[in-house]
Amino acid sequence: MDQAIKTKVEKWDVFEVVLKGNKDKNPFTDYAVRGTFTGENETKTIDGFYDGDGIYLVRFMPSFEGNYTYIIEGSFSKERYKGSFEAVSPAEGNHGPVRVAFKYHFAYEDGTPYYSIGTTCYAWTHQSLPMQEQTLETLRKSPFNKIRFCIFPKHYDYNLYEPLTYPYEGTPCDISALSKENFLEYKPSNPENKWDFKCFNPKHFQIIESRIKDLIKLGIEADLILMHPYDRWGFSEMDEESNAFYINYIIARFSAYRNVWWSLANEYDLCEKKTIKDWEEYADILCKKDPYHRLRSIHNCKNIYDFTRPWVTHCSIQRTEIYLSAANTKAWREQYGKPVVLDEVGYEGNINYSWGNLTAEEMVRLFWTATIRGGYLGHGETYMNLNDKLWWSHGGVLYGESAPRLKFLHDILCEVPGLGLEPAEIKKWEENSATAAHPGYRNKYYLFYTGHTRPGFKEFEFTPGKNYEVEVIDTWNMTIENKGTHTGKFRISLPSREYMAIRIIEIGLQNKTKGKKCNGIK
Amino acid sequence: MDQAIKTKVEKWDVFEVVLKGNKDKNPFTDYAVRGTFTGENETKTIDGFYDGDGIYLVRFMPSFEGNYTYIIEGSFSKERYKGSFEAVSPAEGNHGPVRVAFKYHFAYEDGTPYYSIGTTCYAWTHQSLPMQEQTLETLRKSPFNKIRFCIFPKHYDYNLYEPLTYPYEGTPCDISALSKENFLEYKPSNPENKWDFKCFNPKHFQIIESRIKDLIKLGIEADLILMHPYDRWGFSEMDEESNAFYINYIIARFSAYRNVWWSLANEYDLCEKKTIKDWEEYADILCKKDPYHRLRSIHNCKNIYDFTRPWVTHCSIQRTEIYLSAANTKAWREQYGKPVVLDEVGYEGNINYSWGNLTAEEMVRLFWTATIRGGYLGHGETYMNLNDKLWWSHGGVLYGESAPRLKFLHDILCEVPGLGLEPAEIKKWEENSATAAHPGYRNKYYLFYTGHTRPGFKEFEFTPGKNYEVEVIDTWNMTIENKGTHTGKFRISLPSREYMAIRIIEIGLQNKTKGKKCNGIK
Repeated sequence: MDQAIKTKVEKWDVFEVVLKGNKDKNPFTDYAVRGTFTGENETKTIDGFYDGDGIYLVRFMPSFEGNYTYIIEGSFSKERYKGSFEAVSPAEGNHGPVRVAFKYHFAYEDGTPYYSIGTTCYAWTHQSLPMQEQTLETLRKSPFNKIRFCIFPKHYDYNLYEPLTYPYEGTPCDISALSKENFLEYKPSNPENKWDFKCFNPKHFQIIESRIKDLIKLGIEADLILMHPYDRWGFSEMDEESNAFYINYIIARFSAYRNVWWSLANEYDLCEKKTIKDWEEYADILCKKDPYHRLRSIHNCKNIYDFTRPWVTHCSIQRTEIYLSAANTKAWREQYGKPVVLDEVGYEGNINYSWGNLTAEEMVRLFWTATIRGGYLGHGETYMNLNDKLWWSHGGVLYGESAPRLKFLHDILCEVPGLGLEPAEIKKWEENSATAAHPGYRNKYYLFYTGHTRPGFKEFEFTPGKNYEVEVIDTWNMTIENKGTHTGKFRISLPSREYMAIRIIEIGLQNKTKGKKCNGIK
Repeated sequence: MDQAIKTKVEKWDVFEVVLKGNKDKNPFTDYAVRGTFTGENETKTIDGFYDGDGIYLVRFMPSFEGNYTYIIEGSFSKERYKGSFEAVSPAEGNHGPVRVAFKYHFAYEDGTPYYSIGTTCYAWTHQSLPMQEQTLETLRKSPFNKIRFCIFPKHYDYNLYEPLTYPYEGTPCDISALSKENFLEYKPSNPENKWDFKCFNPKHFQIIESRIKDLIKLGIEADLILMHPYDRWGFSEMDEESNAFYINYIIARFSAYRNVWWSLANEYDLCEKKTIKDWEEYADILCKKDPYHRLRSIHNCKNIYDFTRPWVTHCSIQRTEIYLSAANTKAWREQYGKPVVLDEVGYEGNINYSWGNLTAEEMVRLFWTATIRGGYLGHGETYMNLNDKLWWSHGGVLYGESAPRLKFLHDILCEVPGLGLEPAEIKKWEENSATAAHPGYRNKYYLFYTGHTRPGFKEFEFTPGKNYEVEVIDTWNMTIENKGTHTGKFRISLPSREYMAIRIIEIGLQNKTKGKKCNGIK
């Protein structure tokens, strides 16, 4: 038995069993491997997977501390393997997987609030390895604690090169005649594509899981996009059996990593050959096979998915109209009764597409607008540059100005007492005010945001007898000015600039919240 | 007979008959005067009105050139008066009243396009006469060709002084104890108010009609607000009979002025004691009694009126949510099937209220956004200043930066071939493109607007063989750059700034449209 000899693993880390087995026939389809892991508080039976070269892997994430035993069995080998390990206390920075909390928010399993500040680099794991390293270095210095990316390679404007690896054994269509202008003419049904959908290329998935592990170290959630329509190779038009086979493999490989989220599809409604029934069936596999019940959603282009469906843990929304995005957060919360994550409202940049040329000011304003309405937003960047490498697709470096402001926003969020913000019903402040989501802090903490308005002052009226510390926050210039202690009816002067916020915290409480830090942000 | 001796009047100007009559009892209720005016193409019988000091007036607007005769009769005097006059060709600048044209647009009766660039000065005719003169001087230099204002005085924050005149004989409540902070505690039902709702104060209405005549000279439409809720005197809570009496008087006095529009109410839904049935009844009076069928609408606060009702000629909309305004223009066009005028989407300024502190950039962006969606927007200004005189309420002077950009927008609109803009269905341009509303120019003229997006370039694809002149317009810096002639598929570089537009005109057509002027703008 050639399994890993590690006998201690942190709770919420991965315990991996490595075994040699049969490599004749097609090991992906003709042999099976599974493990049963038993601790004091849980028993889980988990599919392993074939990793090439006669190697089979079984991965398990313990959700509890204590001693575990395991048995590995299946047709991959004549033998049954047994062993044990100890799940020890998580080290600093390991807060466990992210779960839905307080209905509209998220927290790590140890209770630490998780305030999603996401970004998108669809094809970053398909770029050269040095470029992947560069992306990690950029992420390390960035405020992002979630990144969306695709498992399948991406074919789209600004992204027409071959990927570093392919997910299957086979050969792609010839693109020597491809010009940027006619990229849409390359269809996934191109008969030149020759793939064996029963035979994965383990290298492709090994790179992705290396990146998932790198992201864990950086405190970043990996929002994995399982399917998408931007395709010239045919991966978006596999038959149902191949799709199910693929999803099962993905679950076996990746589900043990605590930072994985499942995004069933990007722009599901552009995948012309798949129906809602298909999506529901694939979602059903995730529900039944993922032993850890990772967060699950599906991302739209023009038609928002029915997020009331039970398998969906949170909304993952793309704006459906240029002006219908962050401002609608509260309405979507009410409609779906789940956390609202606006993963795509346009990207900071200056390319030709209207979704790819927001100013940094707009990007930040949209983040604050969604936040003040009790939701979360996602960043992306699409600046034209000499290398033609756009963050939104390739990763690499950031050229924009929004990222430091998103860090500043995250700092403000970490100081919210309890967990998360709820829209507040403050007269005269309309939809621009929030209070703490935690019922115990509802009248003790307020955050107001001016957005595109720029008042010269604001008037407040609170219950007499209570004293509040008032601060004026410049969300663009990243300054916080203390405006002293106030009570009852009072007026706060403002600089008649856009993008200001006012934070009002009941005296006493403010000492407990200031300087709080949440995990997952540098 | 002391009537006017003028025997020539321009078509669409006012022919006014001035008569002496009874002044005993209450001439407003106890005597009547009416005139019948007969020309070759029309006969109209019109109520006159009592103007105080024993003077009765009958006003008539001829809609045709040629000779007219008239008979004045009624209980105001024992005599019947007869006379005649000639309606002559309109002078330059007299294009007649504004009517709905092309379903979603407006034109003067002589066919000249009318592109509404409105503003709001609710209480400007209630200020001192020197201040009214100052407002007229500002308007003369401004781009505005419509102004909304109230007939009744206004009681609201920043506007707590007594008006220059009252509409009725009587005395107002004492406001010596009024402080800015408790202005909402002054209710219209205050028993200190003592008014005779059967006895108008002609001076109040004489001032308003002087201003209406001044506005005609400036080419500005007078959007008269008949009722509104901002009141401490009780004019907003008169009984139904008094309201009907008032509306009849307003029609008799003002309807002959060709620039009058009827705004039945401002924020009708804040007039707590009036029901939809009441509003419909008052609208019915306008329909039946106004001989000229002036434009009619009603303006909301939180609930948009049902503009599908037949008496409504155009939508007069206030945004119901801070982010739901100009972007929704196209949806409202489809919902109501009438011209969409967004009279209130917030004002340029910096006061505390979220409706009163837009940047000039946002004000201009909202105008362009509504325009590109085939609608019209309204301006207002609320800058804090040393005199505490805010344009939105008092008139006076403008402090902002949007007005010259609105003139620039109007110039662009005047150069649209035919009349007005319709949303265009251009791939990749989504909701940000318009074409000419006139069917004959649909594929010959396009206008694109970037708003908050800021592409570095844009690509186009038009029918091969047709040549187009392309211009890049900076809507904020008010420049137009010619980008040469293009055909088929082409790319236009842009400066990666917000607020840009691209105008594309078929070669040949552009020579006919450039430099066109519409009336009503200086």
